Amino acid sequence: QSNVGVYGIIDAFFSYAKAGDNKRTGVDSGGAYGSRLGFRGSEDLGDGLKAVFTLEYALSVDQNEGLGTGGLRARQQFVGLQGDLGFVGLGRQYAPGYAIARYDAAGGVPFGPQALLSGGAGASITPASPARWSNAIAYKSPKFGSLTAEAIYSLGERNQDDNRRDGDRWALAGDYSSGPLEVGLKYHHGKEVAIGGGDQKEWGIGASYNFKVAALYATYQTVKTDDTDKVWHVGVRVPTSSGRVYVAYGEHDAEDSRNGARAATLGYIHALSKRTNLYTAYTHVDNESNQNIPNIRPTGVTTMPGDNVNGIVVGMFHLF
Amino acid sequence: QSNVGVYGIIDAFFSYAKAGDNKRTGVDSGGAYGSRLGFRGSEDLGDGLKAVFTLEYALSVDQNEGLGTGGLRARQQFVGLQGDLGFVGLGRQYAPGYAIARYDAAGGVPFGPQALLSGGAGASITPASPARWSNAIAYKSPKFGSLTAEAIYSLGERNQDDNRRDGDRWALAGDYSSGPLEVGLKYHHGKEVAIGGGDQKEWGIGASYNFKVAALYATYQTVKTDDTDKVWHVGVRVPTSSGRVYVAYGEHDAEDSRNGARAATLGYIHALSKRTNLYTAYTHVDNESNQNIPNIRPTGVTTMPGDNVNGIVVGMFHLF
Amino acid sequence: QSNVGVYGIIDAFFSYAKAGDNKRTGVDSGGAYGSRLGFRGSEDLGDGLKAVFTLEYALSVDQNEGLGTGGLRARQQFVGLQGDLGFVGLGRQYAPGYAIARYDAAGGVPFGPQALLSGGAGASITPASPARWSNAIAYKSPKFGSLTAEAIYSLGERNQDDNRRDGDRWALAGDYSSGPLEVGLKYHHGKEVAIGGGDQKEWGIGASYNFKVAALYATYQTVKTDDTDKVWHVGVRVPTSSGRVYVAYGEHDAEDSRNGARAATLGYIHALSKRTNLYTAYTHVDNESNQNIPNIRPTGVTTMPGDNVNGIVVGMFHLF
Repeated sequence: QSNVGVYGIIDAFFSYAKAGDNKRTGVDSGGAYGSRLGFRGSEDLGDGLKAVFTLEYALSVDQNEGLGTGGLRARQQFVGLQGDLGFVGLGRQYAPGYAIARYDAAGGVPFGPQALLSGGAGASITPASPARWSNAIAYKSPKFGSLTAEAIYSLGERNQDDNRRDGDRWALAGDYSSGPLEVGLKYHHGKEVAIGGGDQKEWGIGASYNFKVAALYATYQTVKTDDTDKVWHVGVRVPTSSGRVYVAYGEHDAEDSRNGARAATLGYIHALSKRTNLYTAYTHVDNESNQNIPNIRPTGVTTMPGDNVNGIVVGMFHLF
Repeated sequence: QSNVGVYGIIDAFFSYAKAGDNKRTGVDSGGAYGSRLGFRGSEDLGDGLKAVFTLEYALSVDQNEGLGTGGLRARQQFVGLQGDLGFVGLGRQYAPGYAIARYDAAGGVPFGPQALLSGGAGASITPASPARWSNAIAYKSPKFGSLTAEAIYSLGERNQDDNRRDGDRWALAGDYSSGPLEVGLKYHHGKEVAIGGGDQKEWGIGASYNFKVAALYATYQTVKTDDTDKVWHVGVRVPTSSGRVYVAYGEHDAEDSRNGARAATLGYIHALSKRTNLYTAYTHVDNESNQNIPNIRPTGVTTMPGDNVNGIVVGMFHLF
Repeated sequence: QSNVGVYGIIDAFFSYAKAGDNKRTGVDSGGAYGSRLGFRGSEDLGDGLKAVFTLEYALSVDQNEGLGTGGLRARQQFVGLQGDLGFVGLGRQYAPGYAIARYDAAGGVPFGPQALLSGGAGASITPASPARWSNAIAYKSPKFGSLTAEAIYSLGERNQDDNRRDGDRWALAGDYSSGPLEVGLKYHHGKEVAIGGGDQKEWGIGASYNFKVAALYATYQTVKTDDTDKVWHVGVRVPTSSGRVYVAYGEHDAEDSRNGARAATLGYIHALSKRTNLYTAYTHVDNESNQNIPNIRPTGVTTMPGDNVNGIVVGMFHLF
């Protein structure tokens, strides 16, 4: 059948981590990229218009778990139209903050400082499930010179007479790309979604500059509920003959300083081919007294509040 | 691999509905046709005999749900043989009443009067899950002139010494098709499957006549447990330059009149191609004091008994 | 897409079984081989090295169950490298005892004496889920003349300071194949996995000899926890013009004799093609007072301790 393509990523890794007195050794799934299986296709409708769809499910390559079972089931599922005026899609789709990974020196891997710290801050501008929005209508602009823009609205689907907008989320973003420079700006807004009530508003900015011998990356973001937390990271990637080394450092500066944390990662990706890569990384997290990232993900070590964490991963990912 | 084909339908829609004081706005899955992903194939065994199989799973394109998770998991799953003497299959298969949709002016969409009212009457002659039977052996005849026949037996699989047949279901059906006229007759029987005990027996008849400028559709069915309920609908489809308009009206005449309801739908389908369609529809339901259809499906609005419902949908479905 | 192949087996059957006073008639899934759908592929990396992956999920063709839902979700999921030095994989993989089926006259079908009795003895050297190990790193040697060897280590992933190795499992195996003779030796070790605590150690040996007019099969295995149980079976396969007849008999000699059982199976497989087969079999199980195999699988009959079981199956399996 020519109407659908099957694709995916399988990522399995060996991990060891220590958090306080807890130690854990494991063979786990999705160290660098979430393991997934997807189905996608498009149909040419004429006049530059296309129907497009994607069905993409998470999987745990190390477990007795099916396709799209467990906590993260559907990574994205949508159907839409793509044309000269851009893309419109209906379904479960990524909010633009997911692509903050583009400005992350660690490339959005779950053990990188940006991913860990934005997760610890409760951000939805993060390369993980908080940026996967159900019940959504999304728009992506065509390219205007060096600029693209996108927007999404996700319905909370409250079924009451009043407060029907509670749980709704919306986001806007713009990305600029020209030569060695890339810059992106994101805004996420959630209505009555904060823990304890109230709206959650987030800004995020990311940038990268490619000097050829090395590329610099940085992100800065704010998460405003009753408190305002800030998360930033800086890092560098250095290409090698068959891969790249990267190092990244970041901080979560919490309004309640007991919730803050600092993290650093040193990693290496070795390309056996465009589709098959080996990787290794070392991550250190320094948690303040109330913070406990990474709790479980990605090395699976149980972390008590205030515990510092050291973890290493050695794995492989294969794209198909 | 040539032994299996991947196919499916993705249907996503925007909906708004009001039921009494409840209002709901949503982006949902399966407005016109249930979103699905399937795998099927056949093998030529010689002498006109073929092995055939289908694995077809439901999905919710708007949700964090995997393939074949949630309430409806498997739409159909079977393996069988197809030859000059017809088809025999083992597995989870459709009872013939599912295809009552063929005589429904709304084409079996879940917001159409036939689907809504047959569901409200507890019928298994309905284009929905009550006509999906597990543990089943099914037979479909070859075509005898204008006639085809089919039968199915589904085992309740009770594991006791006595009453082993409780929960069994069986069905027979015949369809006639000649020129502009199509007629179908269905009988479903469930042993000790009625709520409160006892057998459930259902008759259904449907017909359509295509006048070219318009086609007429009608169904009539009875659902007999202790009470006997009747459901009927009439409707018309009018082809347009790039799609069709349809209107349908139906009633559920319950023996206990408090369970009855009336429904009407006006809809339009716009074909962007054979595989990609846009659609919109308006449905009104007038529930008697004990009835609450549609409760949740398809617009997701919570409906209290006796509440009238008004809903609109605007969506897209894509076949692949 | 050429990077991934879709494959599977659909196996559906009609069954009748009687266990004591319980009787059950059903249409079930996986009589001979577990119904499954899989995705696999490989990539040539040069120098004889390949990246390989498999994602294989269980399904119940008779039920309203999705792909990889229910008790057995993932049959196997792994990514690895294959080269001149053998195969190394990470993920959920088979322990070598799964392939004891190669020396089983009944071919590892779930109603055969080896499968039933090894299951009743709590063995992981068995053609079923106890030999599917999560969190595993596996190695398979290349062929050394007539010999191959394999090893696997599965992590229990305990998350504590002490006893981090509890729940770990490891296994070693060697297989010899030369002309009509095949012999395999397996060792499985589970650390603190026995019911009631303690390690579980298993040895298994299997052999087959093909005399052309018939082939002989035999297995013998021990399961050592506090007690040591023994399971053995012998059987024969006789090829026919379009299939094969097989008969097998086995015993579970339990240290606590009340847990023992004896089983015999007579079966026939009829090949409609290489990919499509019909099958039938009769199985008798004679349980001692505390034993109740098969409890549920494969004929679905509920078996009380001490009840004898008689079952017949008639089914079809199709490979794609």
